[in-house]
Amino acid sequence: MMRPLALLALLASCAPATPPVIGLLTDYGTQDSYVAELKGAIYAVAPDARVTDLTHQVPSFDIREGAYLLGRAARQFPPGTIFVAVVDPGVGTARRAIAISTAKGRFFVGPDNGLFTRILEDEAPCVVHELDERRYWRDPGASTTFHGRDIFGPVAAHLSRGVAIDSLGPRVDSPVKLTTTAAVRDGEATLGEITHVDVYGNCSTNIPASLVGEGTFDVAGRKFPRRATYAGVPEGHPVLVIDSDGRVELALNMGNLGAAAGWKAGTPVRLIPAK
Amino acid sequence: MMRPLALLALLASCAPATPPVIGLLTDYGTQDSYVAELKGAIYAVAPDARVTDLTHQVPSFDIREGAYLLGRAARQFPPGTIFVAVVDPGVGTARRAIAISTAKGRFFVGPDNGLFTRILEDEAPCVVHELDERRYWRDPGASTTFHGRDIFGPVAAHLSRGVAIDSLGPRVDSPVKLTTTAAVRDGEATLGEITHVDVYGNCSTNIPASLVGEGTFDVAGRKFPRRATYAGVPEGHPVLVIDSDGRVELALNMGNLGAAAGWKAGTPVRLIPAK
Amino acid sequence: MMRPLALLALLASCAPATPPVIGLLTDYGTQDSYVAELKGAIYAVAPDARVTDLTHQVPSFDIREGAYLLGRAARQFPPGTIFVAVVDPGVGTARRAIAISTAKGRFFVGPDNGLFTRILEDEAPCVVHELDERRYWRDPGASTTFHGRDIFGPVAAHLSRGVAIDSLGPRVDSPVKLTTTAAVRDGEATLGEITHVDVYGNCSTNIPASLVGEGTFDVAGRKFPRRATYAGVPEGHPVLVIDSDGRVELALNMGNLGAAAGWKAGTPVRLIPAK
Repeated sequence: MMRPLALLALLASCAPATPPVIGLLTDYGTQDSYVAELKGAIYAVAPDARVTDLTHQVPSFDIREGAYLLGRAARQFPPGTIFVAVVDPGVGTARRAIAISTAKGRFFVGPDNGLFTRILEDEAPCVVHELDERRYWRDPGASTTFHGRDIFGPVAAHLSRGVAIDSLGPRVDSPVKLTTTAAVRDGEATLGEITHVDVYGNCSTNIPASLVGEGTFDVAGRKFPRRATYAGVPEGHPVLVIDSDGRVELALNMGNLGAAAGWKAGTPVRLIPAK
Repeated sequence: MMRPLALLALLASCAPATPPVIGLLTDYGTQDSYVAELKGAIYAVAPDARVTDLTHQVPSFDIREGAYLLGRAARQFPPGTIFVAVVDPGVGTARRAIAISTAKGRFFVGPDNGLFTRILEDEAPCVVHELDERRYWRDPGASTTFHGRDIFGPVAAHLSRGVAIDSLGPRVDSPVKLTTTAAVRDGEATLGEITHVDVYGNCSTNIPASLVGEGTFDVAGRKFPRRATYAGVPEGHPVLVIDSDGRVELALNMGNLGAAAGWKAGTPVRLIPAK
Repeated sequence: MMRPLALLALLASCAPATPPVIGLLTDYGTQDSYVAELKGAIYAVAPDARVTDLTHQVPSFDIREGAYLLGRAARQFPPGTIFVAVVDPGVGTARRAIAISTAKGRFFVGPDNGLFTRILEDEAPCVVHELDERRYWRDPGASTTFHGRDIFGPVAAHLSRGVAIDSLGPRVDSPVKLTTTAAVRDGEATLGEITHVDVYGNCSTNIPASLVGEGTFDVAGRKFPRRATYAGVPEGHPVLVIDSDGRVELALNMGNLGAAAGWKAGTPVRLIPAK
């Protein structure tokens, strides 16, 4: 007769923890087979994986935009989440492939080209390993042009099944970081730059809410009153809000400021309190 | 020794019902971090959530189009499904945030701005609650510009874990509904309007199949023979079919009628039986 | 008192195998309700289904492109995976609806119009059944314009729950295949054609790596040196790499060759070893 302890052991195996979510952020676009191949390579290693799309429409090769979007997205996910991020113009060159384990308990897999800049800053301290253990790759003779499918995806899948990050390869001490520009005060003015223009044309900046007061600001000849919501001004009017990232965002209520002003990521902005 | 009843209790906890699917329909687009942040906020509350994308490409701020798409999509899903729908030009204003429980057993979470018009009609009677219990929000001090992430997503995640809808806030008696136009007969003619132009250029209308007979119809100077399928006419020719929603659809076989005729949602159409 | 065998039976039911992934590839686009309706129809049959998007942006009605993308994608997925593929200009005509079981253990559901050409070749031998058992459809009176939702999705969901493929309908002996063109040698030259231009403008061909040697090749007046990676040439320069499918790919490093050269799927190319 089966003993209760044996039954309990069975029970334990019968209720496995739900595997962590694997989130995908790439510049692959959605009209090719690349996203599907990446997903297939993950499921091939971990058939019970839980894969979700973050975005595949980072502009081609735009590491800075990818880093921005990944930083915004990742912080919302629970500890244990694994991210595969691929914006990788240097695929197949000497740039390293890495996995990162952060102080917040999240994991990141992708190229060591600056794409993880915000993660390394926001979730420090991080442990970084180079992916040179080929047994965790899709194929020891991995293709040299599609590391998402051949290395990053399979490694993420192995992580989701409990492989320890330090078995993936040697420790990396200085992962690549992009240079970033901090907003500064210049007398009454605040100097910053546009970090992101979203689909509505709303323009996020690198200016923390704490650097600006209440009131109205002159920016490039337009007056932006600070409001709690876009709808705090009439339709089509400029408005300054604090975005969901805690930064100054410039917008037109129900309009497209990015298009109207010709602003894009990197455009410098100067905020001057209106008299 | 463990008693069988105790084992049964363990077994019950060991085979939890698969959590319901949470479907997302927004105007966020897919190139920003918004969809990812919404997903993260759901997983943060319910790590075992099952999230699926419906569409994120409702035209910006187009509540009517969102209502149409949500109505088409939702009815296909099984009872228990939870929908987060966000087309929300008035985010942060006095418009209410609501959750809906329908007679068909589905749940909807989003802004009370008319986006749920078709749901409230198709799945009546519905119970509607305002979302003012901040303990179910992402953060009691929720951002005022991103209710998808900060309120709707977390509330949907709580619903998926069994929180009762009436614990989310007070009952709402008159949720907002858009005015809708019904098709009418005018002698031999039938008057209606285009409700949706799809990616192929096929033009759905608000005219139920029951309002039109067989035969050929004159519409804006073109002759549309009624057929069972698009391929019932030669390539490029006009055709009237009954769409998968049970309504009259006007199309060009293998062509794009919306582009050719300049029709879009709201365009009036008059069908006259051809002599 | 419950007997151990009864407990074991309970345990078995308590730890069901994770259901297989159902991957979706269509030309539905992502701005309509079609993808959502297809997903809903799957979940309605199999509430615990695991659905993932491959792509919904196959160009409208482009069966050849759909076949290419499906062939690239499917091979990456593990045995047991089920694919719903829909590029279906002849929906509602006499073209058959089919399900395929392949020698690699994968399943495919969709129209019998050539969309599965590469699958039938790459994963032979295959068993093909026509879908005429209406009890596995969404509704015995299925709409004639939306087989994805009304037939293919529900059938895939039934397969995921263990329905045997031979219960879906009679065996089909000669499923439709597209004609394909093989690359050939012509003296020193190699003649082939572009099979796919991806989002970066990289041009895949039907020329296997084995047909070309090392060195540099003249193609349409440009010199393409063969390299292991795109970055093996300066930015903006032409390069020949072997793509992740084992075929010759022509590209501009960090540039868009498809746009620059006006090449698209079907464009013939002639590679001549440079002197």
